[in-house]
Amino acid sequence: MNKKTVFLVAGGDLRQTYLAKSLSANSKVYSIGLDKKITDKKIIPLNSLEDLKEKVNYVIMPLPVTNDGVNINMPFFDEKISLYSVIPYLDHNAVIFGGKVGKESAIFTYKGFEVIDYLEREELSVLNSVPTSEGAIQLAMEELPTTIYGMNVLITGFGRISKVMIKALIGLGAKVTITARKYSDIAWAKIYGCRAIHINDIEAFLPEFDLLYNTIPAVIFDEQRLALLKENCLVIDLASKPGGVDFETARELGIKTIWALSLPGKVAPITSGEIIAETIQNILSERGEL
Amino acid sequence: MNKKTVFLVAGGDLRQTYLAKSLSANSKVYSIGLDKKITDKKIIPLNSLEDLKEKVNYVIMPLPVTNDGVNINMPFFDEKISLYSVIPYLDHNAVIFGGKVGKESAIFTYKGFEVIDYLEREELSVLNSVPTSEGAIQLAMEELPTTIYGMNVLITGFGRISKVMIKALIGLGAKVTITARKYSDIAWAKIYGCRAIHINDIEAFLPEFDLLYNTIPAVIFDEQRLALLKENCLVIDLASKPGGVDFETARELGIKTIWALSLPGKVAPITSGEIIAETIQNILSERGEL
Amino acid sequence: MNKKTVFLVAGGDLRQTYLAKSLSANSKVYSIGLDKKITDKKIIPLNSLEDLKEKVNYVIMPLPVTNDGVNINMPFFDEKISLYSVIPYLDHNAVIFGGKVGKESAIFTYKGFEVIDYLEREELSVLNSVPTSEGAIQLAMEELPTTIYGMNVLITGFGRISKVMIKALIGLGAKVTITARKYSDIAWAKIYGCRAIHINDIEAFLPEFDLLYNTIPAVIFDEQRLALLKENCLVIDLASKPGGVDFETARELGIKTIWALSLPGKVAPITSGEIIAETIQNILSERGEL
Amino acid sequence: MNKKTVFLVAGGDLRQTYLAKSLSANSKVYSIGLDKKITDKKIIPLNSLEDLKEKVNYVIMPLPVTNDGVNINMPFFDEKISLYSVIPYLDHNAVIFGGKVGKESAIFTYKGFEVIDYLEREELSVLNSVPTSEGAIQLAMEELPTTIYGMNVLITGFGRISKVMIKALIGLGAKVTITARKYSDIAWAKIYGCRAIHINDIEAFLPEFDLLYNTIPAVIFDEQRLALLKENCLVIDLASKPGGVDFETARELGIKTIWALSLPGKVAPITSGEIIAETIQNILSERGEL
Repeated sequence: MNKKTVFLVAGGDLRQTYLAKSLSANSKVYSIGLDKKITDKKIIPLNSLEDLKEKVNYVIMPLPVTNDGVNINMPFFDEKISLYSVIPYLDHNAVIFGGKVGKESAIFTYKGFEVIDYLEREELSVLNSVPTSEGAIQLAMEELPTTIYGMNVLITGFGRISKVMIKALIGLGAKVTITARKYSDIAWAKIYGCRAIHINDIEAFLPEFDLLYNTIPAVIFDEQRLALLKENCLVIDLASKPGGVDFETARELGIKTIWALSLPGKVAPITSGEIIAETIQNILSERGEL
Repeated sequence: MNKKTVFLVAGGDLRQTYLAKSLSANSKVYSIGLDKKITDKKIIPLNSLEDLKEKVNYVIMPLPVTNDGVNINMPFFDEKISLYSVIPYLDHNAVIFGGKVGKESAIFTYKGFEVIDYLEREELSVLNSVPTSEGAIQLAMEELPTTIYGMNVLITGFGRISKVMIKALIGLGAKVTITARKYSDIAWAKIYGCRAIHINDIEAFLPEFDLLYNTIPAVIFDEQRLALLKENCLVIDLASKPGGVDFETARELGIKTIWALSLPGKVAPITSGEIIAETIQNILSERGEL
Repeated sequence: MNKKTVFLVAGGDLRQTYLAKSLSANSKVYSIGLDKKITDKKIIPLNSLEDLKEKVNYVIMPLPVTNDGVNINMPFFDEKISLYSVIPYLDHNAVIFGGKVGKESAIFTYKGFEVIDYLEREELSVLNSVPTSEGAIQLAMEELPTTIYGMNVLITGFGRISKVMIKALIGLGAKVTITARKYSDIAWAKIYGCRAIHINDIEAFLPEFDLLYNTIPAVIFDEQRLALLKENCLVIDLASKPGGVDFETARELGIKTIWALSLPGKVAPITSGEIIAETIQNILSERGEL
Repeated sequence: MNKKTVFLVAGGDLRQTYLAKSLSANSKVYSIGLDKKITDKKIIPLNSLEDLKEKVNYVIMPLPVTNDGVNINMPFFDEKISLYSVIPYLDHNAVIFGGKVGKESAIFTYKGFEVIDYLEREELSVLNSVPTSEGAIQLAMEELPTTIYGMNVLITGFGRISKVMIKALIGLGAKVTITARKYSDIAWAKIYGCRAIHINDIEAFLPEFDLLYNTIPAVIFDEQRLALLKENCLVIDLASKPGGVDFETARELGIKTIWALSLPGKVAPITSGEIIAETIQNILSERGEL
């Protein structure tokens, strides 16, 4: 990537704006359809693709790329710009990046262009677990009239988000318990300073917790388990569909439950944009194009 | 303290309610003038002091004890109850506890009763620095479109709040810089994982920070220093009057500043009440009355 | 596993003794060929297999099981006991556990007995990285006339040992740098509080380090890289054969290098024995035999 | 302190050598009576004070300054050099630094020279608690056949050494309990992630510990308390005279006890020398002479 490399950042939310800023430090960056309230001297905004007077090496599509399968997801732009309309402006070696790329990629691959989904990169998932963790902690701080310090917190699962949350919650002085199935996960959780309990044995411990974070995308918390929780235990579910909680039953039992999805873009759009920019740079570096 | 010990918890905000709850685990607790929305089977609420049929060993007055010098600070009660009116209900060895005790204590000491200000206890100040720290971090999370992780944070001073914040912020992955005057404080800050810079040398570093917490109650951040900050640096002032920031100038320079006082009662009233209860129990334990 | 379950712990070093102790808390444990200096009321020592008057459910062989392919590895026993000679004492459902099980397992599997190598369990590798990490830190403390605190430490690789060492070294106040190839490992290393540098870019940083731990089993430190190290940088190689250092060249360059293998059994035999016991109990628990 | 400032570093052990090295980065440094095995191009060694051709601004005496009250403590030098003999070489504003300065300072103060004991500086005590802590941990690693990880460790007192040890031991994965008398110390110990027990209540917990560090210089561990310890609990006493343990009784009870004094100079002479150099520079900075 050098000063002659040309990026086009198209559509999306605040994350795309900060991604464009981040990339503009070392490259020429055009943008179309970003939030107009935030401007940056280094980014060249386009009103129309026709204003582009040079070929583009890399297009950065938003997350998700499209909502209707035809046009770029562009909530801050009055007109519609179709995915197809970008093709004439592409350098013959151009690469299209996007998040949650679906069947629409065929439009580009059919013409011989490579399409890369940055959401499939492991380091992006790792880095995104940081804003997710902070958003989840902020939620608990806002909801609870107690400190995180001294609280008994249960985290289900030992994936990326759990690992980041452990470090943050222990730093804040919570007493953290992890429940997982694999004995090696249990070993790790203990090494990282948690109490760790096998998922088969967790029920006896459920009445102890003041705060519960679920990260397992399967309904772990059915009526039987929900009934074991403390009355004022706060449940924050971070798992994607179907979530880990029987929300209906939780409501009937009077247990406060929050299903918190897509936290990175909500609580830290700047950081989220920078994470995508960093991931794209890693990809280019691996390809020897940086 | 045993089951025969009688407490009267009078007035105040939510903290008094949770303090009463905490004490009721091991003692008989009457209350008057607490928030009626929150009840607890173990606490005996009084409509009037006249309903008290036994002598009281310990009265817990709120923080502050009084706003007008005459009546107990009792925002959730319709009638006024004077400090003086409590006296007939006191055991001859009774002790009166309160926060920010002023000249009004003379009413009791004149009659031979001991008055203890729990706010003057070192452990209460230490424990209160935990909710202050969490409240200060929550504020930054809410205000900023970035994660705390990776942020350059400056904390001025190395008192109780700074020490607690260091641990929490490092747990969250911030890069923390402390500035202080004493070389031993600088040594400690480094041992606790921070960069530490003598206050005389701080100016050269000011442009680096994304977030600044002030804990020094003296106007450290005058025009000259504010002008050195990054445009979008968030300043959170935790120092009591006069604060550490020239707020007027900060506004003119477009630097966002929040003067965050009395955080414990606001962000964590339950914890704050429990902290006061724990402090009172420590005092009783030291006196051999527990 | 219940009081009627019968274990036979055979041969090996101090680890087997503590493993036997650990198992004897909940089961009947016979031993043969352990170090006689350490006894425990709950373990029943045998002078000969012929003294066994009941069938054995589980045999715990040492690590490694055998040195000559025929007899059990039994350094503390005067006579030789062949693997084969154990067979008549086995319950028909008996399971044989051992470490580094090789072709000798055929003796048992041919007769229909299951043989399990506990060294292949992930949690054992995770747990063993703790004594390895401590042994590696102890070595540096003993060799260096400086504190770990404040030292610039490089760790190559981001496997189990590296992860455990990061936590310990940061606790001691070292400045830790990780070098790895995968971008997701680099992301994790940063989250855990390290500086992280891609292996392709490490050479420019090599002159900074006071202490270097290698965990990659490939000769990373050839003449070119060794020549970049500080003269008094201590190199501790934790990688199995071939190790990560050209030891010959290191000696010529005057760089002190220690190849530290098999640390768990050396620095913490009790803990190592307990780790094996815990792993065996996990296996039995998974099989529903506990 | 500038290139024209002249230091004379006289006598002492390895710490003085590294102190001289550290000071020589920014000043002219003469030395006399240091260990001849370690040389440094920037330090000018003298065979005799008579070789000094310019006046000295600062003399750095060793720790302790003298063993006989007359001559400089100079174990690596064949001849004796009296304190008095330094005087003719001093600039009229010269300052004499030394550790554990006693009555011998009168020789200099009588002549109008200022004498400063760097051992009385708070930051030196803070910084020295780091090598003390590491030495104490190294000792336990060497003595015990278990890992520090998972161990129940008691630390008595909550002074500088305890605070540094807490951080290191928690990083290593020990379960740390602090016992202290002040409730504010108990609050801090909890905030730093320990269990904390009032000294009046400690006896009931004594049988739990695998490792005990004493930092209180008063015989806390008398027969009654020693008898409550686990048989194989290791006791490391870091307190200066009279120490905190009845060593005679401990031996009779078969409890292994190590009285570990003056660890910084033993385990980390380089770091210790650098700490003294840093302290001297702080003093000069405060005086405006740097």
